[in-house]
Amino acid sequence: MSKQTEGKTVAELAALVGGRASGDVGARVRRVASIESAGEGDLAFVEDEKFLEAARACRASCVIVPEGARLEGARGCIEVERPKLAFALVAEVLHPTRRRGGFVHPSASVAEGARLGEDVYVGACAVVGEGANVGAGTQILAGAVVGEGVTVGSDCVLHPNVVLYDGVTLGDRVVLHAGVVVGADGFGYVRDAGGVYHKFPQVGTVVIEDDVEIGAGTCVDRAALGVTRVGRGTKIDNLVQVGHNVEIGERVVIAAQTGISGSTVIESDAVIGGQVGFGDHARVKSGAVIGSQAGVLPGKIVRAGVWWGTPVQPLEEYKRLNALWLRLPRMREEIEELKRQLSELAARLEEKSE
Amino acid sequence: MSKQTEGKTVAELAALVGGRASGDVGARVRRVASIESAGEGDLAFVEDEKFLEAARACRASCVIVPEGARLEGARGCIEVERPKLAFALVAEVLHPTRRRGGFVHPSASVAEGARLGEDVYVGACAVVGEGANVGAGTQILAGAVVGEGVTVGSDCVLHPNVVLYDGVTLGDRVVLHAGVVVGADGFGYVRDAGGVYHKFPQVGTVVIEDDVEIGAGTCVDRAALGVTRVGRGTKIDNLVQVGHNVEIGERVVIAAQTGISGSTVIESDAVIGGQVGFGDHARVKSGAVIGSQAGVLPGKIVRAGVWWGTPVQPLEEYKRLNALWLRLPRMREEIEELKRQLSELAARLEEKSE
Amino acid sequence: MSKQTEGKTVAELAALVGGRASGDVGARVRRVASIESAGEGDLAFVEDEKFLEAARACRASCVIVPEGARLEGARGCIEVERPKLAFALVAEVLHPTRRRGGFVHPSASVAEGARLGEDVYVGACAVVGEGANVGAGTQILAGAVVGEGVTVGSDCVLHPNVVLYDGVTLGDRVVLHAGVVVGADGFGYVRDAGGVYHKFPQVGTVVIEDDVEIGAGTCVDRAALGVTRVGRGTKIDNLVQVGHNVEIGERVVIAAQTGISGSTVIESDAVIGGQVGFGDHARVKSGAVIGSQAGVLPGKIVRAGVWWGTPVQPLEEYKRLNALWLRLPRMREEIEELKRQLSELAARLEEKSE
Repeated sequence: MSKQTEGKTVAELAALVGGRASGDVGARVRRVASIESAGEGDLAFVEDEKFLEAARACRASCVIVPEGARLEGARGCIEVERPKLAFALVAEVLHPTRRRGGFVHPSASVAEGARLGEDVYVGACAVVGEGANVGAGTQILAGAVVGEGVTVGSDCVLHPNVVLYDGVTLGDRVVLHAGVVVGADGFGYVRDAGGVYHKFPQVGTVVIEDDVEIGAGTCVDRAALGVTRVGRGTKIDNLVQVGHNVEIGERVVIAAQTGISGSTVIESDAVIGGQVGFGDHARVKSGAVIGSQAGVLPGKIVRAGVWWGTPVQPLEEYKRLNALWLRLPRMREEIEELKRQLSELAARLEEKSE
Repeated sequence: MSKQTEGKTVAELAALVGGRASGDVGARVRRVASIESAGEGDLAFVEDEKFLEAARACRASCVIVPEGARLEGARGCIEVERPKLAFALVAEVLHPTRRRGGFVHPSASVAEGARLGEDVYVGACAVVGEGANVGAGTQILAGAVVGEGVTVGSDCVLHPNVVLYDGVTLGDRVVLHAGVVVGADGFGYVRDAGGVYHKFPQVGTVVIEDDVEIGAGTCVDRAALGVTRVGRGTKIDNLVQVGHNVEIGERVVIAAQTGISGSTVIESDAVIGGQVGFGDHARVKSGAVIGSQAGVLPGKIVRAGVWWGTPVQPLEEYKRLNALWLRLPRMREEIEELKRQLSELAARLEEKSE
Repeated sequence: MSKQTEGKTVAELAALVGGRASGDVGARVRRVASIESAGEGDLAFVEDEKFLEAARACRASCVIVPEGARLEGARGCIEVERPKLAFALVAEVLHPTRRRGGFVHPSASVAEGARLGEDVYVGACAVVGEGANVGAGTQILAGAVVGEGVTVGSDCVLHPNVVLYDGVTLGDRVVLHAGVVVGADGFGYVRDAGGVYHKFPQVGTVVIEDDVEIGAGTCVDRAALGVTRVGRGTKIDNLVQVGHNVEIGERVVIAAQTGISGSTVIESDAVIGGQVGFGDHARVKSGAVIGSQAGVLPGKIVRAGVWWGTPVQPLEEYKRLNALWLRLPRMREEIEELKRQLSELAARLEEKSE
């Protein structure tokens, strides 16, 4: 949740997003809303001309519309090439991330040797360990735990009960939602002759680069040896598992409950659906899009394009096979029919021979 | 875990569940147990007459049995129409939810402007934010974080380390198990021409209605615009993902690790298995039952009935297709056999022609 | 992350793992590293002779190699039968688990009636409930919550924000990673005639035996009646769901995001992949290996061997069926071709008959 600002005029918002304002350009807009619920002081948007009727009927003080679709009448209107993007950019201004700063709650525990930058906020019962280094403007909310020797960049937000194990590194403007765990031991064991599992060393670390956002409950394990890395601008949803030594590139999007096994590489600009499973040492090439619930076998290389199913296949191939799967009863009938006809034909031939 | 009470007599319990008591109706029962482990002072049940022999052999002080299946002998016995339900109702009496009340632990942080109803319990290192409003009899256990402006009804239990983001609303008698996160940002971004992801505003909220119980580690995201809602009496298991703007009706049951994408609607009285995945904007109609690991495509409408597989199909259809799938090797042999017979036939015909 | 020790000489390490040292046997090794990144003071290993060239090129002070593959030159070298196992054993010595002991942080809450053994560590904002019993050398890190009446053995590590519900039991040397929840209520309800769900009693407990390690965010529910058990030496990855009354044997390995429904039994020495789903009352026999994303139906018995798919099948059978699935388009063509040939044949026969 974010606080509301004083608001902006329609003209100011149009300038902000490089759009063309019309109607009541002096009207003041204070928050974003859906086209169905918007009222006085609200900004709504329609991405597609087919929703223009809804836009005309809505009570928003301003509506962002596609270029050329100007709404008539007195209401504020902003035409832009990409309304949804403009709406998102305006929302960043109208609903800026809440900034709490320059405060350490008396119930927080900050180690003597930890360094806090300017305007750092440390909430109730949060913990910052020895040797940690927290950049300016970062907010460590209630109950979050920053381990020893951790580096956190500036303007990050660690939501309540986030846990950063010792020694991990976050860049700037990283947002970790409640309950995220970064740097727990990777899952690796070696079995001895007696069947007992010995822990393979998990003594590497994790680096989360700038502008990454990670959803609630997601776990990013430390590398066995070396580094588990999440690249700049990547966005990860809730309850995702990122195994040890995984390398995720820049601007990757990963939906909820996906699991990525050890040493798998997801290159920049890949898009991964929810509940996808990756075996270890797989590689997803830049530009690949993998549908939800897909399964990628260990070592598999997934090229650019859209992929689906378990084991993953190109979407077109998957659709074709799935259509045939649904046709199986028909195929079975056809085989029975062929058998019948064939035996009939054989009988007729037999007859003739007699 | 719940504390034991003084216990009830067999006669009292029979009255409570509208059953017929027999045997030692004055025997005192203090706790519930399984038919295998029950002993002196325990209550057990058998749902089905086929377990009556086990019931006769067991050492419970009282056994609940189906109507007409009265156990002979001195032991307490209660006949009811639905033994398992009666057992559950009795357990609510013998093992009532532990009530801690009227206490704020000195290590807890309750904001000045937060309002706590009568008999509210705030455990060690729990945090209640500014403007939060907590109903009478609610228990906020150790390490739980209640954000600013949150509304919590009466007689709720927030188990340890639950996180309620700012502004969300819980009804009465809501139980959230350890680590539940309500109100984290939904997962939505808009990509600009340079490939950078901008956050689509996630400024809506979450409403959890009365009598909802949510399992450990489950995440319910706030709406982008509007409300994510979990209806009255719904029960959700552990590690479930509920995306932004999802609407879940009343008395819905959702098993562990299921994921529900944005704006999907699950109508009242639906039953959802574990590890099911829902694409966005799907709709599950009232009375639908969806089997574990099923996959529901975006926008799909799932009608009443039992569904299975990915993409979901009616169970009967799924079974039929799966049986054919298992028959594929046979079908392949049949095709080869047909080819062989056909070419033999063709050869014989050729022979004749000469 | 673990602290470095003073190090050991190559000769000392060789003695430790029963290997044969050569080269600079007095060289001091302080940490483990990958063959690619190792430098002065590091120990690396190669499991397979095909990586010997990399081993020769690497800058480690010591390399563990397979027997008979001794590296020439001055560098330290240890030959052993199983290099990876030796590497893991050496890592336990060079990177011992960090021991914090004999300290209760002033912000922690330890109930008066809780008993802490010798050298127990209780971190910032951690909570130990009334009647809890914590064994010697155990570390309860920041924000972890140990419920009332809990028994924790010696030398355990509860990472930050772990939650142990009232009354559960852990053995010795148990490691629970951040956010693990043990003992939340199992998921069981009984519906009454009005459609309302009543909670089936969840009044059993959980026992986690010695040497178990459980990954971040994993949930182990308490039994309805009786005990949910995780056997000695079992290793469970992140975000796994273990339902009520599940029994997991000894030395079982379970990868991330797997879900196990109520009353299922996983016998000792089974190996379970990631994202596997188990229906209730299934049984996995000792020696079974189940591939990732597999689905095991309720009540299914999975024998020793390798299993794959949903519903699970022996791997060989799964591969065969999957290959046929990929052949469906070809099978369909073959059927069409058969139809064509058959009708041609029928026409020729017809011709002859005229």
